[in-house]
Amino acid sequence: MALVVQKYGGSSVATPELICRVAERVLERHRQGDRMVVVVSAMGDSTDHLKLLAEKVSRAPAKREMDMLMASGERIAMSLLAMAITDMGVEAVSMTGGQSGIITDRVHQSARITELKPARLLKELNRGRIVIVAGFQGITDDEEETTLGRGGSNLTAVALAYALNADVCEMNTDVDGIYTADPRIVPNARKLDLISPDEMLELASSGARVLQSRSVEFAKKSGVTIAVRSSFNDHPGTLIKEMEGMEEVVVRGIAHDESEAKITVRQVSDRPGIAALLFGALAEHHINVDMILQNTSEQGATDVSFTVKEDDLGKALEVCQNIKQEVGAAEVLADSDIAKVSIVGVGMRSHPGVAATAFRALSEAKINIEMISTSEIKIGCVVARRDCDNAVRALHAAFELDRVD
Amino acid sequence: MALVVQKYGGSSVATPELICRVAERVLERHRQGDRMVVVVSAMGDSTDHLKLLAEKVSRAPAKREMDMLMASGERIAMSLLAMAITDMGVEAVSMTGGQSGIITDRVHQSARITELKPARLLKELNRGRIVIVAGFQGITDDEEETTLGRGGSNLTAVALAYALNADVCEMNTDVDGIYTADPRIVPNARKLDLISPDEMLELASSGARVLQSRSVEFAKKSGVTIAVRSSFNDHPGTLIKEMEGMEEVVVRGIAHDESEAKITVRQVSDRPGIAALLFGALAEHHINVDMILQNTSEQGATDVSFTVKEDDLGKALEVCQNIKQEVGAAEVLADSDIAKVSIVGVGMRSHPGVAATAFRALSEAKINIEMISTSEIKIGCVVARRDCDNAVRALHAAFELDRVD
Repeated sequence: MALVVQKYGGSSVATPELICRVAERVLERHRQGDRMVVVVSAMGDSTDHLKLLAEKVSRAPAKREMDMLMASGERIAMSLLAMAITDMGVEAVSMTGGQSGIITDRVHQSARITELKPARLLKELNRGRIVIVAGFQGITDDEEETTLGRGGSNLTAVALAYALNADVCEMNTDVDGIYTADPRIVPNARKLDLISPDEMLELASSGARVLQSRSVEFAKKSGVTIAVRSSFNDHPGTLIKEMEGMEEVVVRGIAHDESEAKITVRQVSDRPGIAALLFGALAEHHINVDMILQNTSEQGATDVSFTVKEDDLGKALEVCQNIKQEVGAAEVLADSDIAKVSIVGVGMRSHPGVAATAFRALSEAKINIEMISTSEIKIGCVVARRDCDNAVRALHAAFELDRVD
Repeated sequence: MALVVQKYGGSSVATPELICRVAERVLERHRQGDRMVVVVSAMGDSTDHLKLLAEKVSRAPAKREMDMLMASGERIAMSLLAMAITDMGVEAVSMTGGQSGIITDRVHQSARITELKPARLLKELNRGRIVIVAGFQGITDDEEETTLGRGGSNLTAVALAYALNADVCEMNTDVDGIYTADPRIVPNARKLDLISPDEMLELASSGARVLQSRSVEFAKKSGVTIAVRSSFNDHPGTLIKEMEGMEEVVVRGIAHDESEAKITVRQVSDRPGIAALLFGALAEHHINVDMILQNTSEQGATDVSFTVKEDDLGKALEVCQNIKQEVGAAEVLADSDIAKVSIVGVGMRSHPGVAATAFRALSEAKINIEMISTSEIKIGCVVARRDCDNAVRALHAAFELDRVD
């Protein structure tokens, strides 16, 4: 008898019919003897619908009120799923983030979990009930409602799996698992049975949108095993956990991300503290910077390029323009016509030559590399957005990722 | 500087545009120096939408889960209104029923308020903020969410007005106030400046759908002054409060209700305990009975007629059929083609002859009266539904209600 935390995303509970299908899946596991905790996101595009309503009444909605608003979406989904399961004959009870014991700090819209108090949840489980939890939300010490930011429902699931010492945290999603590359781009991409948390982290932050890095980080730190599965079939999916023998594989997969934009601040004074000034100002405005590249100095000045989420481009440009004089820059250029393609694999650490193979493959495909950033287990290349798909295909072929290892 | 509790119904906050209009109305009062607490219902038909979702996933949704689900509607409205007001330059903060201190018993879907703890609400008011409260909902001692049942948002408003010792509780609705009759039926119906709670209670339960009786009852008991006003203009509306000199008016208004149906149980044994048996069975099935009429006995048997909400007719008939043998009835007849027309006024108490005038007016209009029930301040007549409008007009004219007193 395992204790299983399952998470279903918005597309899995988008309609009453789909909610009933999820109810059946949960019940099947319950009948097999598993104790079930189910975390749900808001139905389909209801979150976008709520955001749109907020935009219509306010230019800059107060974050606290946004949390009050957004938390409704998950509450609707959770109560409907609880009703559906109960209707099928097994008692289910829904819980808000607060009721399930997710305690957070007071940073509205991107709260961090500070404590887990699952006493009430455990009580319901021990009464033989299936517990449905509203994802994405928590509560502060003084009972203010908060939301956990992007990928919050995944984080809820992993955090509860940790707090309850669950056997597995299953992420039920609209894909079968983690692939060596996006199958829509690379038809012979292969589903991975196993991937390490570190690789998953790089894939997640490099645009493999199945899981947000926060939940993988939490799982890695806390030793929770995640399974990425499809909501729509019973295939085993991909397990995210550390395992022996994983080093043998050099490259695990190719990720791509078309949601970033590049900013170049030209002719910045090449003196200490300038980078701190620039990126400090961006951080103050809560703009996440991904890749940073600084060219060699010529005549006391240098170009600094970096990438941000395309959504943040306007705000980031404003910050750069305001600070332009202070950092002595000549001009600020923006390019949203880019894509990031990344090669990920823990084996890279001990295998030199991966970068060379990658650059050769891109060059043979006549693709120009605009920026490069590397980590121990990742090589990321910025290319023109029109070259993205070709770059992914070229790299997937170069590392023979279609072959079963 | 008055402390004002305002309530806006679903039709007043049905769209983002309407929410912004409400925000402007609230702000105007705030600028005039009033301290504002605003209770909102769910947007437009969103409550019906949520109910429909529940019906699609469950044949008999668990009441606790229904409360979790339904409470979302008001939360969406409250946060949007708070955002809209803040966007216009005055700080506003939204509160759930629980946060505003509405403590209830555990009867899900029709909870009763057991305690009011508005400390947190007062704190926010004292910080100069406008407080928006989700209507219709409360919280139990052990932090389970509940809803207050029909007319719950009005009850929230009155209860908070009482707890905060507010100067007035304004019900902003889609009508201008309380009229001597429905202006759609009687074009020269007159808006009343003032009406007593008792009269309002009779009007509310007799189909003047502006206010539910629970909120008026609460207001009467606790001495809260209610103002019924339009959300869409600045007319003063109607005040519901006790005032001297009100006795002089004999008849205050004519109410009508086309939502009831009549059941007649024929030839019931005329022995003690039979009525208790019949109406006990109906009560067990949560069917509210309005008028009850029992004819004189002939040969040890009597006819019992009563009215119920048309929605409950099917269920009520079932109950009657099941109990038919036990009460020794010959047959059970149903008639949903009825209307109830009521004459209401506190002055009636001391003015004999009102009933005679009413019956004469209906007779002259050739309208047959099927049932009559009277209270100290009301005379209710059941007529054929097709006669309803004519009956209202005949009574309105007979008591000269178009004349200003």
